[in-house]
Amino acid sequence: MDTENPLSTVWPLPVRGEPFHRADAESLRRMDAISAATACAKLHTMGITRTAVQGPTALETGSRVVGSALTLQFMPQREDIASGHGQEYIERDTALWAVLETVQPGDVLVVQAWGSAFTGCFGDMLVRYFKRRGGAGIVVDGRIRDAARVRRLGVPIWCTGTTPHYASQTDLFPWAYDVPVAAGGVLCLPGDVVVADDDGAVIVPAAKAPALIQDAEDHEDWESFSRMRLEQGARLSDYYPLSANSRAEYELWRDSRPKLPAQ
Amino acid sequence: MDTENPLSTVWPLPVRGEPFHRADAESLRRMDAISAATACAKLHTMGITRTAVQGPTALETGSRVVGSALTLQFMPQREDIASGHGQEYIERDTALWAVLETVQPGDVLVVQAWGSAFTGCFGDMLVRYFKRRGGAGIVVDGRIRDAARVRRLGVPIWCTGTTPHYASQTDLFPWAYDVPVAAGGVLCLPGDVVVADDDGAVIVPAAKAPALIQDAEDHEDWESFSRMRLEQGARLSDYYPLSANSRAEYELWRDSRPKLPAQ
Amino acid sequence: MDTENPLSTVWPLPVRGEPFHRADAESLRRMDAISAATACAKLHTMGITRTAVQGPTALETGSRVVGSALTLQFMPQREDIASGHGQEYIERDTALWAVLETVQPGDVLVVQAWGSAFTGCFGDMLVRYFKRRGGAGIVVDGRIRDAARVRRLGVPIWCTGTTPHYASQTDLFPWAYDVPVAAGGVLCLPGDVVVADDDGAVIVPAAKAPALIQDAEDHEDWESFSRMRLEQGARLSDYYPLSANSRAEYELWRDSRPKLPAQ
Amino acid sequence: MDTENPLSTVWPLPVRGEPFHRADAESLRRMDAISAATACAKLHTMGITRTAVQGPTALETGSRVVGSALTLQFMPQREDIASGHGQEYIERDTALWAVLETVQPGDVLVVQAWGSAFTGCFGDMLVRYFKRRGGAGIVVDGRIRDAARVRRLGVPIWCTGTTPHYASQTDLFPWAYDVPVAAGGVLCLPGDVVVADDDGAVIVPAAKAPALIQDAEDHEDWESFSRMRLEQGARLSDYYPLSANSRAEYELWRDSRPKLPAQ
Amino acid sequence: MDTENPLSTVWPLPVRGEPFHRADAESLRRMDAISAATACAKLHTMGITRTAVQGPTALETGSRVVGSALTLQFMPQREDIASGHGQEYIERDTALWAVLETVQPGDVLVVQAWGSAFTGCFGDMLVRYFKRRGGAGIVVDGRIRDAARVRRLGVPIWCTGTTPHYASQTDLFPWAYDVPVAAGGVLCLPGDVVVADDDGAVIVPAAKAPALIQDAEDHEDWESFSRMRLEQGARLSDYYPLSANSRAEYELWRDSRPKLPAQ
Amino acid sequence: MDTENPLSTVWPLPVRGEPFHRADAESLRRMDAISAATACAKLHTMGITRTAVQGPTALETGSRVVGSALTLQFMPQREDIASGHGQEYIERDTALWAVLETVQPGDVLVVQAWGSAFTGCFGDMLVRYFKRRGGAGIVVDGRIRDAARVRRLGVPIWCTGTTPHYASQTDLFPWAYDVPVAAGGVLCLPGDVVVADDDGAVIVPAAKAPALIQDAEDHEDWESFSRMRLEQGARLSDYYPLSANSRAEYELWRDSRPKLPAQ
Repeated sequence: MDTENPLSTVWPLPVRGEPFHRADAESLRRMDAISAATACAKLHTMGITRTAVQGPTALETGSRVVGSALTLQFMPQREDIASGHGQEYIERDTALWAVLETVQPGDVLVVQAWGSAFTGCFGDMLVRYFKRRGGAGIVVDGRIRDAARVRRLGVPIWCTGTTPHYASQTDLFPWAYDVPVAAGGVLCLPGDVVVADDDGAVIVPAAKAPALIQDAEDHEDWESFSRMRLEQGARLSDYYPLSANSRAEYELWRDSRPKLPAQ
Repeated sequence: MDTENPLSTVWPLPVRGEPFHRADAESLRRMDAISAATACAKLHTMGITRTAVQGPTALETGSRVVGSALTLQFMPQREDIASGHGQEYIERDTALWAVLETVQPGDVLVVQAWGSAFTGCFGDMLVRYFKRRGGAGIVVDGRIRDAARVRRLGVPIWCTGTTPHYASQTDLFPWAYDVPVAAGGVLCLPGDVVVADDDGAVIVPAAKAPALIQDAEDHEDWESFSRMRLEQGARLSDYYPLSANSRAEYELWRDSRPKLPAQ
Repeated sequence: MDTENPLSTVWPLPVRGEPFHRADAESLRRMDAISAATACAKLHTMGITRTAVQGPTALETGSRVVGSALTLQFMPQREDIASGHGQEYIERDTALWAVLETVQPGDVLVVQAWGSAFTGCFGDMLVRYFKRRGGAGIVVDGRIRDAARVRRLGVPIWCTGTTPHYASQTDLFPWAYDVPVAAGGVLCLPGDVVVADDDGAVIVPAAKAPALIQDAEDHEDWESFSRMRLEQGARLSDYYPLSANSRAEYELWRDSRPKLPAQ
Repeated sequence: MDTENPLSTVWPLPVRGEPFHRADAESLRRMDAISAATACAKLHTMGITRTAVQGPTALETGSRVVGSALTLQFMPQREDIASGHGQEYIERDTALWAVLETVQPGDVLVVQAWGSAFTGCFGDMLVRYFKRRGGAGIVVDGRIRDAARVRRLGVPIWCTGTTPHYASQTDLFPWAYDVPVAAGGVLCLPGDVVVADDDGAVIVPAAKAPALIQDAEDHEDWESFSRMRLEQGARLSDYYPLSANSRAEYELWRDSRPKLPAQ
Repeated sequence: MDTENPLSTVWPLPVRGEPFHRADAESLRRMDAISAATACAKLHTMGITRTAVQGPTALETGSRVVGSALTLQFMPQREDIASGHGQEYIERDTALWAVLETVQPGDVLVVQAWGSAFTGCFGDMLVRYFKRRGGAGIVVDGRIRDAARVRRLGVPIWCTGTTPHYASQTDLFPWAYDVPVAAGGVLCLPGDVVVADDDGAVIVPAAKAPALIQDAEDHEDWESFSRMRLEQGARLSDYYPLSANSRAEYELWRDSRPKLPAQ
Repeated sequence: MDTENPLSTVWPLPVRGEPFHRADAESLRRMDAISAATACAKLHTMGITRTAVQGPTALETGSRVVGSALTLQFMPQREDIASGHGQEYIERDTALWAVLETVQPGDVLVVQAWGSAFTGCFGDMLVRYFKRRGGAGIVVDGRIRDAARVRRLGVPIWCTGTTPHYASQTDLFPWAYDVPVAAGGVLCLPGDVVVADDDGAVIVPAAKAPALIQDAEDHEDWESFSRMRLEQGARLSDYYPLSANSRAEYELWRDSRPKLPAQ
């Protein structure tokens, strides 16, 4: 086995994808007022139908994050390439460590881990380091470990559960980063926008963000009007969604409001 | 497409079942002291064996509701009849909106949504309206969305999870209400009694409620006696369940008690 | 049916295994500082690869227990041997009641219940009694009932969910105790050490405990050093895991520390 | 229990839907040349996206049927309404027997049985009777029993497996017929066209059949041209699908052919 | 490790249960005319409701066996007790080899293998030996390997699939024989009667066989009468099941028949 | 959208990996005598433990193939990159068409399709073309369509089922070829050796083939000796696996044989 890089004999690891552009700060700032549900619905009407990551749920109720996607991909473990039987000496050289050294403030790490019940992709030490580098959140189609300590770190995480297993203990191995990944049946390119909350995580294609934001801001605004009317006793079918009449009423209300940021 | 009712061309929607009787108030009041577990066990001994809704769990720990069942049924979406691609203009005319306009105080909405992971049957606006009309709780064999806002509304909900998808975004469509439904493998007729708590939701056939209540009140009462004895150091097998001896002891204790309502 | 023991006609129940040795107190005490994740990782490097119970999760976030395994085994119900149709008069004579009468302080009950969604293995009364006898925790590859009351008892429980069903209501029946069991794909012998926390439950073969403890204490210690360095801004790959250099640095730090118990 | 109709006390069973029109004979005849795969693809391009019944597979390799849908719906069993504990005296009065008395030659029975592994919806006697009445095939989202005998009858059947259980032995009960049903996630109205082969069953909305047929006949025709060219050694990308050039070539070939029905 | 028995250090393996009585030859002979479906239905009406093994299906269509149950139990593998990493030297000493040395002509081996997709419980050599000893069939809640060769041996097998893995390659290890086992959710005691055909495998409690046979023979007989009438054009509801009238007609037919063994 | 390549706007597709070496002809020839089960077992003893593809089964009983792996990878569909809504004009430009144009005689196509039930990766036309180019077999962790026609082509295929859907109709899209893929939980590099039969498909790392062959040839040889002895009435434990004594006996037999190729 090559002493320089013990992973390199059969297939050179880690694989690193091409450089990519992170989502722009202004998009991320405005997206902050938009729920995962609204993002998902608006993308659907824009023709992008597979955006909600299936499987991972918020580790803590009340979690929420918006950020630019940084990606990590696991593949099935194979002992002639790399395995986790001596974790201390192997994982250090993998995509798992490598991607963490590239985290920039605000990044959301999106991880293809095949929904494995046996792979604890991140534990206390790695999440701690991720946080120190400014990482904003993690969406992993797999499990985490050291859950009690990880919870205390306060990094919002969407995962498929917890496990005592470490990342390469059983079935998977960190393979690549900065590459397109599939998480919970959704494609995520590096630099896409991730919006995640208690409903789950939604991947917003980077180029779709501006149109989505405009549409969603209007939506969140008229919904707040509808909500007010419903609280005042109005009939659901008259105000949600807006009818022609109530849309007109809303627009009057909207235009006569003092100007404030949405939400 | 018919402009009066855009859903009516192939099959007239929404379907509405026959008028039904809600469970009587006295039954509901007395049922309030009975846990889902006791209701399920007693129905089993009365020969009704499939009463515990499989799948949906309490959105919030500590939830509890007893009420009369109002039913809603989803069916697979088909674009020649109805689909959710333009939600604002379609869902308003469906059974989902219609059933909400019939909610009466204390109703528990029981929803057949096939356990779909892709259907967010209710969001903030609908649950808000449901609550305003006095709805007591929701048992949905499917998911909800806007979970963060919905939680704040405080309506007890049993569901199979959360999702960013809206009700008719993907695979299902609201079809009928006031009809028999199947939720989590259990049949629910309109007007049945729903008892739901942290153990899950149980459907009590309306006509079985009186006998169940009588049996359960006795059960809850002797269990409180057993609990007391166990706390005093008694042997489990002597006091749970009651033996002939401890039953006699319990009856003495019961009959010598000052008369108070059970529990 | 035999009036002495109503279960005995076809197959004598309950089955009780051979007497066994509980894990020694000193091992349990030292194991208390070791997480399920560390135990699982160390056993893996020691060649024991299937130790993490799949399925059961902590009923309450923040649960943690270490104890000696007491085992209980369910088998599929069959009416000619035993069934739960008259629970009060049958379950009392089963392995479920019998094992509870043998609980010793610090025991962790490990239950083979086939991951059944229909079997509420323990309810309020049984957990209450278990607690009174000093039971430390329960790991059940099945469900519990009376969850609201059980939560208030504060006994740490790992289970696959809650259900209104009682233990022998539907598909399973208590069969044996003090026998080897399989829980979530892991073998547990009576007297093995159970370590369970928010990551899940790990079964430690009794004879492996001493070596595991020694290895794990060292691990937890250098990790606390690494954690400190990471918090001080060090690079992940330099300090986690320790390199030759940082190992030397750690050992200096460790040996110059005032002597205190690990963690 | 009502001696006239033992099912009628709580809810009048069986439920029968409105009269419906069977698919017209000419459509069925022309559809006979179209595979389930082509029907599914063409409906997709026509905007009907959920047509392929998930779960049921052909009981015998090489099965194929086209016919008009006759529908049957099971619901969860509940002992206060109806249960199968005395099958000989109960099932006779259910929708299962009733629908069989309405079978017309060429009908394909489509059955909503929730994919149950415990419900053997049809056995030898019922399939025998179905065949005698001219039934063309069965698509059941559930299981069948008496599989050895049923196979010998030669009726093409798509099901989710076999089981020794009879229809109402365990979890479901025949509830309604001539109603819209959901089978394997697909809506089927009475009178829709069913096309089933080794790929599975596809539900064609009755009103979409004419357009589908026209589109599919063209498709099957140019595919036969492409197939010929590929066999002659042509490059896949040049002939499948047709390019502008090969489309022109095909049209020449088509128009110069002696006129024969497609396939 | 003990050189006499390499499995004995931690737990003495293999475990062997008590001696048992095989089902009597006359019962087995008469049961031969009864289908799995009829056995299952009749046991249900006799109050034994969980008899149909879930999961395993016939490896070859048209398989059928009746025999006395010989049992084998796998448990999760644990390397400190036994593992399959050096199969040639370990499996020979396990319950898998041991049970094969006890096979008697007509035995049906019933195997608890947890439905594992990774365990090929039997391959060519073991099935070959089983056949040589007169084994009649195998019902295994797990997989087999060497399927092509095994099929040629002609031993009827019900299993959950095929796999290239050998028995102790991955997750399970042969543990005990001549003990009660659970296969596909059904309890099987050594010496019970197994009836398996294309519908699946049914476990008949030994003591229930005589009553079942009598009931089933009558059932198979009147069904053959009903079948005849249906073929003659009778109405389903008049002859299946028999009404009071058609029962009388059947009894006349039966009693006037020349006396022949049923079916 | 770019008219040259309609897929290229957001992410350039198809992705093609680096050139690779096919497995050498001599290895493939000798591997032809080795079963998937033996390959899997021998790799396990050589330390390669995850080699058996989970999920895909032989479309036709009796299938068998050995060949060099050619790889194809699907990813979740996203409409801003590529979708199958106009299949005729899109799929032609994807990795699915591209990989077929690179097939060389003897290749086995290994496809990462995520086990999707909705994706019919190959139909009649594509398999037909694959066969014309000399393709030897297909292992697809997904479904195929046009199953009746595909079966007649005689190309051995391992898949997770059939479906009427075409490749990009619903959830996935052809993304890359000549890249490492994961199929059924197993890593496959381009140029690995695929051995598939009725037990399933096994991926043999190319560099491990020579050692595997040597080991397996010996194994198949002594097994044929054991098989002979068992047929002659020997005791299983004496001849399978070989003991020291029977190994010696085998070696005498082997060495005294006329020299013939194994099997």
